[in-house]
Amino acid sequence: MKRGFGSDNHSGVSPEVLEALKAANNEHALAYGDDEITTELTQLFKQQFGPQAEVFPVFNGTGANVLCLDSMMRSHHAVVCAETAHINVDECGAPQRLTGARLLTVATPDGKLTPELIKQHLHGIGFQHHSQPRVVSIAQPTELGTLYSLQELKTLSDFVHANNMLLHIDGARLANAAVALGCTFRQMTTDIGADAVSFGGTKNGLMMGESVVLLNPMLNEDFLYRRKQAMQLCSKMRFVSAQFKAYFNHDLWRRNAQHSNAMAQMLFNAVKDIPGVEIVYPVQANAVFARLPRKVWTKLQEHYFFYDWDEAKDEVRWMCSFDTTEDDILAFSDCLKRVFDECNSAK
Amino acid sequence: MKRGFGSDNHSGVSPEVLEALKAANNEHALAYGDDEITTELTQLFKQQFGPQAEVFPVFNGTGANVLCLDSMMRSHHAVVCAETAHINVDECGAPQRLTGARLLTVATPDGKLTPELIKQHLHGIGFQHHSQPRVVSIAQPTELGTLYSLQELKTLSDFVHANNMLLHIDGARLANAAVALGCTFRQMTTDIGADAVSFGGTKNGLMMGESVVLLNPMLNEDFLYRRKQAMQLCSKMRFVSAQFKAYFNHDLWRRNAQHSNAMAQMLFNAVKDIPGVEIVYPVQANAVFARLPRKVWTKLQEHYFFYDWDEAKDEVRWMCSFDTTEDDILAFSDCLKRVFDECNSAK
Amino acid sequence: MKRGFGSDNHSGVSPEVLEALKAANNEHALAYGDDEITTELTQLFKQQFGPQAEVFPVFNGTGANVLCLDSMMRSHHAVVCAETAHINVDECGAPQRLTGARLLTVATPDGKLTPELIKQHLHGIGFQHHSQPRVVSIAQPTELGTLYSLQELKTLSDFVHANNMLLHIDGARLANAAVALGCTFRQMTTDIGADAVSFGGTKNGLMMGESVVLLNPMLNEDFLYRRKQAMQLCSKMRFVSAQFKAYFNHDLWRRNAQHSNAMAQMLFNAVKDIPGVEIVYPVQANAVFARLPRKVWTKLQEHYFFYDWDEAKDEVRWMCSFDTTEDDILAFSDCLKRVFDECNSAK
Amino acid sequence: MKRGFGSDNHSGVSPEVLEALKAANNEHALAYGDDEITTELTQLFKQQFGPQAEVFPVFNGTGANVLCLDSMMRSHHAVVCAETAHINVDECGAPQRLTGARLLTVATPDGKLTPELIKQHLHGIGFQHHSQPRVVSIAQPTELGTLYSLQELKTLSDFVHANNMLLHIDGARLANAAVALGCTFRQMTTDIGADAVSFGGTKNGLMMGESVVLLNPMLNEDFLYRRKQAMQLCSKMRFVSAQFKAYFNHDLWRRNAQHSNAMAQMLFNAVKDIPGVEIVYPVQANAVFARLPRKVWTKLQEHYFFYDWDEAKDEVRWMCSFDTTEDDILAFSDCLKRVFDECNSAK
Repeated sequence: MKRGFGSDNHSGVSPEVLEALKAANNEHALAYGDDEITTELTQLFKQQFGPQAEVFPVFNGTGANVLCLDSMMRSHHAVVCAETAHINVDECGAPQRLTGARLLTVATPDGKLTPELIKQHLHGIGFQHHSQPRVVSIAQPTELGTLYSLQELKTLSDFVHANNMLLHIDGARLANAAVALGCTFRQMTTDIGADAVSFGGTKNGLMMGESVVLLNPMLNEDFLYRRKQAMQLCSKMRFVSAQFKAYFNHDLWRRNAQHSNAMAQMLFNAVKDIPGVEIVYPVQANAVFARLPRKVWTKLQEHYFFYDWDEAKDEVRWMCSFDTTEDDILAFSDCLKRVFDECNSAK
Repeated sequence: MKRGFGSDNHSGVSPEVLEALKAANNEHALAYGDDEITTELTQLFKQQFGPQAEVFPVFNGTGANVLCLDSMMRSHHAVVCAETAHINVDECGAPQRLTGARLLTVATPDGKLTPELIKQHLHGIGFQHHSQPRVVSIAQPTELGTLYSLQELKTLSDFVHANNMLLHIDGARLANAAVALGCTFRQMTTDIGADAVSFGGTKNGLMMGESVVLLNPMLNEDFLYRRKQAMQLCSKMRFVSAQFKAYFNHDLWRRNAQHSNAMAQMLFNAVKDIPGVEIVYPVQANAVFARLPRKVWTKLQEHYFFYDWDEAKDEVRWMCSFDTTEDDILAFSDCLKRVFDECNSAK
Repeated sequence: MKRGFGSDNHSGVSPEVLEALKAANNEHALAYGDDEITTELTQLFKQQFGPQAEVFPVFNGTGANVLCLDSMMRSHHAVVCAETAHINVDECGAPQRLTGARLLTVATPDGKLTPELIKQHLHGIGFQHHSQPRVVSIAQPTELGTLYSLQELKTLSDFVHANNMLLHIDGARLANAAVALGCTFRQMTTDIGADAVSFGGTKNGLMMGESVVLLNPMLNEDFLYRRKQAMQLCSKMRFVSAQFKAYFNHDLWRRNAQHSNAMAQMLFNAVKDIPGVEIVYPVQANAVFARLPRKVWTKLQEHYFFYDWDEAKDEVRWMCSFDTTEDDILAFSDCLKRVFDECNSAK
Repeated sequence: MKRGFGSDNHSGVSPEVLEALKAANNEHALAYGDDEITTELTQLFKQQFGPQAEVFPVFNGTGANVLCLDSMMRSHHAVVCAETAHINVDECGAPQRLTGARLLTVATPDGKLTPELIKQHLHGIGFQHHSQPRVVSIAQPTELGTLYSLQELKTLSDFVHANNMLLHIDGARLANAAVALGCTFRQMTTDIGADAVSFGGTKNGLMMGESVVLLNPMLNEDFLYRRKQAMQLCSKMRFVSAQFKAYFNHDLWRRNAQHSNAMAQMLFNAVKDIPGVEIVYPVQANAVFARLPRKVWTKLQEHYFFYDWDEAKDEVRWMCSFDTTEDDILAFSDCLKRVFDECNSAK
């Protein structure tokens, strides 16, 4: 398949990850998380997120998100999230099926929630006919590639807790956010008061595996059972844990995220001034969202795979990944220009 | 960790699997199963199971089992299975939670169902107060390491279909069964009329990943959505598919299973005549179940990790895996003899 | 409690209903719907809805709605409905919990869906990450007291089926709609092509009990089990069926609905010209929605119980029921005028 | 339909109940339990069960049982119950679907659990692969018409709590037990330490409605939402509450239960000495279970409707109800004798 900007899931894995898998393939190890690498991992996560952090490796982002929500609520509760949130749009209803709860969505200009936007759902509290808002779920960066500042996160978290709710962060690309904000994972999660985090790695150079990080000790109690019952317990877990160990050691997470963020900036600069291209959200992580004539983007798709993000608005998404090269960007922007020319001359 | 007989999940992975992962790490590939390796895999499975086979890679055995059941029934149905079945005992209720259905369990002498044993649950058909039996789920080999013959499978399958039910085979160790029976996967599944198979690999040298194999075309329709919603859709699926490709190519599945079965026979022979040891089920695949004095097995556990399978009956389980060595067995049987001696002299 | 306009659930039951319950209390009868009255009811519903109609009495409106949806889809499907729909707002998440599916909501000016409004959710068809739109659920009359014309229903139904979906009508107040449109139940449901109807009675003079009416024969197969499992099977069902029998015989449904509709018109006329009162939706059934100053409606609530429908917009709801009297309306409108005067003079 | 012994659900309702419904039909009342009769009911239940009792009327026994269980556990927990328990056999899987949890069943000689019988399921505690036993659910009287003594209840309850579990009592016929034991409801539930009770009325002369009685204050918190979401919230609740008010006032529960118990004794005496009839369980409440030749009971079913309880064992069930008469019993036992004669002479 041609290299491109379809998704950071289209990239392969960092060589360090393959090395780690090979090293982990060393004799017997207890299954289901009782192995030594997973034990080490617990300490590594505490270093990254603070001593109260408890880590539970799972298979994928859907599993991480749903299990975080599941640990925070029951079926008569509701989750407030952005209309554009991955848990709302792209999980084929997994949160509803597994938790039985409602998602209360909010239209946002940029994928970001604010106290003001959340308030519209804070009514009917104590009214038995209404699902009770219990969790606010945000993504950092958002599904639209935008970022909350540390101050915005703190304000949001305080508001959430002041309203007897809990805060979930979908951190499928949390490394990209940390790099962009120049902060630690801890500053962005534990220190602002988040209760549970879905911590991703697959989109940033790992092969398979995400982690649930619980920061609120109230959420730990039954988690092992909930993970198993939700079919997210890996038998040879050392091979998931080894990936995360490699991720933290030698700053693989940082190097990969810095690169993909930088490539997104380069892509942004390469296309933003092409007449007919409108960049629709601030490029703050590794995604570029653009609006361009339908004729152009459908023609471009003959050369490159990428998603039409919102067909009604002619918005498309281009993702950079840890292995995106400058040549990739040059080839792509050249192609885009050519397609524009062809479309214009065809008029 | 000391090598031992705790589980075939305690072993690592075959070198061929690591090679395959490395080879798959080649440029970009579409995510979620649209990659070339997964496309190839579809053909490989058809070669192994027959042209009507449709394969859907998933993360783990719980996922494979639950998704097979989910494709065959709705919540008012029931699954008939052995009391000792993995889906009944060791999934922390995942089948109930995901499908909402009842499991109707049958006490068996050896983990195997028969038409006669199933009949006890075939009442209340058409009675709205009763969950309607819809699926019979068996494991090949069973959770107790025993095997159905091809004839037994055919008889069972005919009975199941004659009663308007469907047949699921939990094949977490199907390779061990194929090797033991000297037959193909197809003969053991498609040809006897099975409707859906959970096809395992992790316990036989793969790293992570199992496959749902649907043989009844009625079951395919919505499966993609069901897998996604059940959180079992892998993003970088090429890395699961590559493992199965390696598994089939060069007969890795066969070599590994032959070895672990042979080791189980060797272990059986090494311990069966030790006074005080009673082998409780026929050793037909890679498991040895033994009854021995509690004092002995608890002391043995100071040296080796293994599960007390049924504490009430002093039954323990010893599993062989693809990497079990003759030395492992000698060391273990020696240790067992020593422990017996110590216990006897302590009297 | 003071008589008022809080809800048509606040009224008692028609005397005919008590008579019917008494008459049904006659010796022994088979339970769970095998009694003679329920058998008769089946015929009565076929007279009202057409020969293909199958009726299944249930306990309440939540049960009727959820079971209709449950019969039409599985958890990876989605229901398109108005943002204001009862199933979205007032069931504490029962549809999500029981079906596991998503509700895709649509903002509407008047509670009514149109093909154009539904289209925004008809994307991602065949895309495994998206819940697949399967049911369109409307209410007749809507939760805002507005009505679909027969032509609008037909247009909607055709659109729904042309898009491989099914049409559910929440008819908690269907009698009020039939009376207002001057049509039969059949014309409004079967004839326009509806697939399943929640048919209410409790809000129009019955005591307890609603009915699921399935018009699409594909939906019947497992319904008995689904109702039982969803805890909506009544043991002494004759006492639910007897109410519906009384409802149809002697046109109780029509007389009651005519009265409550007429009372809503009278209420509308009594308040619409009071300065400061704005009627926000057409009064087409038995509900009047008004906007008035917060100071006024909160003060009015000291005298009468009613719901602030949308606090943010200062909208309140006043419902008429089969036992509303002209005196009730005069007293209420007088009180409203007095409260306005007090508020004005307090300035 | 001919009067008989098919079920206590086949009887109608006590005249006092119809009177109460009529009296409750008095002007407007708040819906969903905020009415005056329901408020009174709360006090009546506290009188019967003790001051900590909280009552939540629901529609039926399935609803009461499932909601009790739902309030006590989450989906990774398990319920220990008798194999013959109604929640296991006759709810079409409602507990599994609504709670997602496993039922761990125990074979019993007489439908009664004991600490010894429960112990078989108390293993794997803390083991993530096993559903964790959380609730013990018993019925008083049992599904087989047998009774726990107060001492047995106390012993069981102490055992349950000593093992960190909670005790649920399915009291669909609790009045029959209270009458048989000559004790109060409180002595049989609150005083022995039960945590939650499904309190029935429908089988003992009410029309429709059961009650969840929560005795452990930890269970109350979210119950209102859970009931609504589980579709068991009645809108015109005064008409359920009025039935229970009538039930307690003037000892209707006691009179009805005394009568049906006495009739069961009379029936027992009328049939027990008929050659070929074997009474299989002690007749302690209002049920008589008999074993008799298949030829006889199938022929008897031509005259009377009743359930073959266990076809494999030729066991049938005959239930007495509050309206069973001595003539009913004489006619039935005469018929049974005649059928025996016919069968004998036909040999």
